[in-house]
Order: sequence, then C-alpha cells, then structure tokens
Amino acid sequence: MKATHRLLLSFVLAVSAWPRDGAGTPQDALSSWSEGASKSSIVEFVAAVTTEGGPEFVPASERIAVFDNDGCLWSEQPMYFQLAFAIDRVKATAPEHPEWREKEPFASLLRGDVGAALAGGERAILEVVMATHAGTTTEEFERTVQDWISTAKHPRTGRLYTEMVYQPMLELLAYLRAHGFKTFIVSGGGIEFLRVFAEGVYGVPPEQVVGSSIETRFEIKNDRPALVRLPEIDFIDDKAGKPVGIQSHIGRRPIAAFGNSDGDLEMLQWTMAGAGRRFALLVHHTDAEREWAYDRDSNVGRLDRALDEAEAWGFTLVDMKRDWKVVFPAPPRR
Amino acid sequence: MKATHRLLLSFVLAVSAWPRDGAGTPQDALSSWSEGASKSSIVEFVAAVTTEGGPEFVPASERIAVFDNDGCLWSEQPMYFQLAFAIDRVKATAPEHPEWREKEPFASLLRGDVGAALAGGERAILEVVMATHAGTTTEEFERTVQDWISTAKHPRTGRLYTEMVYQPMLELLAYLRAHGFKTFIVSGGGIEFLRVFAEGVYGVPPEQVVGSSIETRFEIKNDRPALVRLPEIDFIDDKAGKPVGIQSHIGRRPIAAFGNSDGDLEMLQWTMAGAGRRFALLVHHTDAEREWAYDRDSNVGRLDRALDEAEAWGFTLVDMKRDWKVVFPAPPRR
Repeated sequence: MKATHRLLLSFVLAVSAWPRDGAGTPQDALSSWSEGASKSSIVEFVAAVTTEGGPEFVPASERIAVFDNDGCLWSEQPMYFQLAFAIDRVKATAPEHPEWREKEPFASLLRGDVGAALAGGERAILEVVMATHAGTTTEEFERTVQDWISTAKHPRTGRLYTEMVYQPMLELLAYLRAHGFKTFIVSGGGIEFLRVFAEGVYGVPPEQVVGSSIETRFEIKNDRPALVRLPEIDFIDDKAGKPVGIQSHIGRRPIAAFGNSDGDLEMLQWTMAGAGRRFALLVHHTDAEREWAYDRDSNVGRLDRALDEAEAWGFTLVDMKRDWKVVFPAPPRR
Repeated sequence: MKATHRLLLSFVLAVSAWPRDGAGTPQDALSSWSEGASKSSIVEFVAAVTTEGGPEFVPASERIAVFDNDGCLWSEQPMYFQLAFAIDRVKATAPEHPEWREKEPFASLLRGDVGAALAGGERAILEVVMATHAGTTTEEFERTVQDWISTAKHPRTGRLYTEMVYQPMLELLAYLRAHGFKTFIVSGGGIEFLRVFAEGVYGVPPEQVVGSSIETRFEIKNDRPALVRLPEIDFIDDKAGKPVGIQSHIGRRPIAAFGNSDGDLEMLQWTMAGAGRRFALLVHHTDAEREWAYDRDSNVGRLDRALDEAEAWGFTLVDMKRDWKVVFPAPPRR
C-alpha cells in the first residue's frame, strides 16, 4: 500500500465509525495488525460479545473498553511526553521566576541537565509538575497545553508528539467503537493535559478521559466564575488507583482493558475478574528499530510484574515487532 | 388524555429517542409543560443551539446538559430520599450492632425519632451515612440499593421513590437527548446510590452521573479483586463543589444546567458564564397540593440566594404549580 493511501486509510479510521464488518467485508479494519494470535484474540472477543443471541453477548451499554495512554496509545520514551511539556514550561516561564536559577530541581533543568534535576526523585518531579500545572484557571491551562502540543517536537523523531501515536491502536479504538463499544482513556498522566488532544487524536471526548488530577477551586473573580488549579494532588490514577478511577468516573466494570506496564496491572485484573467474556491486552515494547525495546528494567513504563502475571490472568501479549505491520501513522505531507 | 395513554406516552418518552421535531411535528415532546414563558425559553434555546448555520449553533459534542437530582428530577420531601434509605439500613442492620441501642444518633433512629437523631446536625448525618454506605464492596452496595429502591415506599404517597420523578423533567431529558444533547446528573447525593437507578429511570448511564463520594480502595481478597468502600469522605458535590465535579467528570463546561436550590447556584453560574448561548433553569416548588411548596425557609432544598440571583444571571424560573400540567407520571397498573 502506498504511503498516501495508508495516510488516507488512517484518517478514515481515526475520524469515522467503521461499518460492522461481516464475513464479506472487503476491507480489514485492523490492517496494521499482522495475522496471528494477538489479532485473532481481539477479533474473536469482539465477535463473541457482539453476536446477538450468542452465549457471550454483551449489550452495547456495557461494552466499556479502557486504554492506558503512555506506551499504549503513544510512545513514552525517552521520557513521558507530559514531562517534556513540564520541562518546556519551566524554560518558558523562567523569566518570571528568577529564584529558580538557584533552586533545584529548576536550576538543573534550566542548565539542560534533566538527569540531575530528576535525581531528586518523586519530590523533584512533583515540584516541577506543580510549578507548571497549577496556579492558572482550567481555561488558561488548556490553552497552554494546546499551544505546546501543536508545536513541540519529539527530540529523536522530530515529529509532533501527537504523530507518535500507534496506528494499530488507532485502528483498534475505531474498530471497538464501530462495534458499539464506548472507549475510555485511563491514564497515570494528567486528566486535563490529555483532554486537550484526546478527542482530536483518539476520538475520545473529554468526558471519557480518566487521569491523575490536582485540586481545583471554584472562585468568582471580578464577577466571573473560574476554576483555579491548586498545587495539591487530588488523585493519582496509577496502579491500584486505576480501578478506583474507573469506578469513580465510569461506574461500571470494563469488559476490555489495554495497557503496557505494571501501572496497568490492577486495571487489567479488575477487568478480567468480572463475570462473562473479558479481554485484556498488554503492548510489549520489543521493537528497538521502529520504536523502542524495554520492559523489566525500564524506569519509564516498566513491564515486570504484569509480564509475570500475564499467563495466569489470560492477558493477550502484543509483541510490537512481530504483531504490528506499522507502528506510527504515515507522516502528513506538510 | 386518558391515564393509560399518558402512561404509554411517558414510557415512550423515557426510553426512546424522540424524533427531531420540525415545525410540522404533530406531537409535543414537552406535553406536560404548560404553554408560557418557561416552556418557550426551553424550546427557543434548543432551537438556537441546534440550528445548523445559525449564529448560536453548538456542535453536538459540546451540547452538555447537567441536572441536579433531589428536588429537580424527583421529590426531596419530607427528607432527601437517600436519607430514608440510610435510616432503613440502620434499622435493617441494627441486630448486628447491639451498641447502637445506647449510641446516638442510632438510638433515636431505632426509636423512630428522626428529629432527635438529626438534631446532632452534620456530624450525626455523617455518622449515619458512613455506618450505612461504607464497609462493603461496590458490588454489595449496589445490590443493597437495588433491593431498597425497588421496594421502599414514600411515607406520604405510598409510591415507590422512583415513581416520584417529575414527568415534565423526564420529557425534558428525552427532548434534549433527541436534539443531540448528552445529559448528566450532577447531584449532592451519593454517586453510587444514584447510579443504581439513573439509567432505568432517567436514561442517564452510570458514566454520566456525578455525585458525592466516599473513598474506595482496590484490594485482592482470596485472589478476587474488589473495590472496598471506606468510611471517609472523598468529595462533596454540592454548592462550589458542583463546578469542580463537572470539570473532573465531564471536562467541559455545560451549555445548559437545571437545578432547584442554593446548592445548584454555582453550577448554574458556571454554566451561564461561558461563551455563546447558555441556559439555566430553577424549579421553584410552589405546589403544596400536587407536590410541596417551599423555598427560603426550608431545611431541605433551600432556595434563597439562588432566587435572589435568578434575574441578574438570567435563570428561567419554573413555577411548578403554573408551569407543569402534570407533576408525577401516571401510576403504573399493578
């Protein structure tokens, strides 16, 4: 398939509902997936829960599918993209913060030494996040993210971050929606960061995004109501927090869950432990050539415990190198 | 209209999408609303935001409408229905708690003296709520509410609580959905309590319910993942909490909001302060004969500050007695 055709196809898949594909449908809605066990497990699951009158049929209202974002829908190397946003914000707002020149972790970041800045661990990361994500209204924050996401480039590929989404996962999102599923993102990343581009890039509206959050406060300033973002953690949507976030936002147990790291294990377990037919999938990053290869020893997106548990829980393991014909969508012509 | 016809109509309205009613549509989707300023303001708003090419057109994805529950979608007198649930649960579980016979507020409740029990104010109510809403898994709690809501009767009307929903508001929910709106409940009541019946009664799925919540924790007990409800407040979705809950769960500002008390004021202000055409409505309980009449001095659903602010903010005020031809749906034949 020519690149221009592939681009057209990916566009069609991303923005429109795909017709229910009976046996005779000529086109393959999952065309970036190699034939094999991973793809078959997806197709068989969807057929089972959508066959009316079948023993495993699930009504559309209960077809809830949840997707992790970092490392599952888009890349997460060499660092979570939201951290790149935070660092860029530190640089952009440094003139307003002369004190940062002497204060860690900001001083190291401003010298360009990310490693030294993050040596302070969670506390350092938290300081950077609060300094760059709080103190504005929700609307101001949305504009800041919008500006960044539409211009910032990935250091290795030189592409926009939103062009480093996985083509097979875009197809999967569209395929599930075409079969009556409601697709949600359930991410350890910031809920308000994700919401800025989730609808345009993944077809997932703001009300179907679950993520980590900081506190907000309602205020009336100069007769105008505003929601102000406060430098205080509200909720961490990771690990055992993911089922909690799912219950809070969705209020029913998903029947399908997609992840790639130990941070997704509890979400996948919660999904698989429900009654009736269930599906859970882990993307295993095995492709150093087209993307990255990492698992048990990675600081970003570590996949260790969940890999050990995969067989016992019946998770489908996607071998990126073998199972995906294409990783990223064809670059747009500029 | 005969009672059987009215029953059929209310059923159709509650469960199915209403066709877009152009000028020539013979049936009125808001037939329980009297002709007048309230009804006109709704119809004109919906026409303005759904007329493609019109100056106030809003794309369907942004047509978010939020509804308070107590006193807006169903009655709330002589006490919030969820409090009746809590009191019934105290009575039902009293044999497991011999200590309650000596301990307030439980001792008074068990003697049938609700007034004395609630004289302890917020602290007393909190104790009753935690004793009856925490300590179980989410699934056990759901079954408990389901059992109660399908059998408990209102002390004055003898009807099921779910039969004390407002027919004009059911019509309004269906009317908005038929015009591409996504309808959410945003209630000071408990999110998990509401979710049990919101889909069946209002056509609002669990993922579109926002409410107050207690903390939950993910646990694996005997190899089975569970979410356990803890006796700790997570979030109070009332007053200034409502815009916060809306942002957290929906992630965009509603264009229409419906309430009835001071607890809804900030939600209505937040809605009206957005750009473009907006709509906000307060149900004023003026009908002592068919429902109840109360406002500034009521302990339940007090409407005081919001009534003062209504004109300045442009809220539509519904006079229940004058504006609603019917209050409750016709009783089902048993």
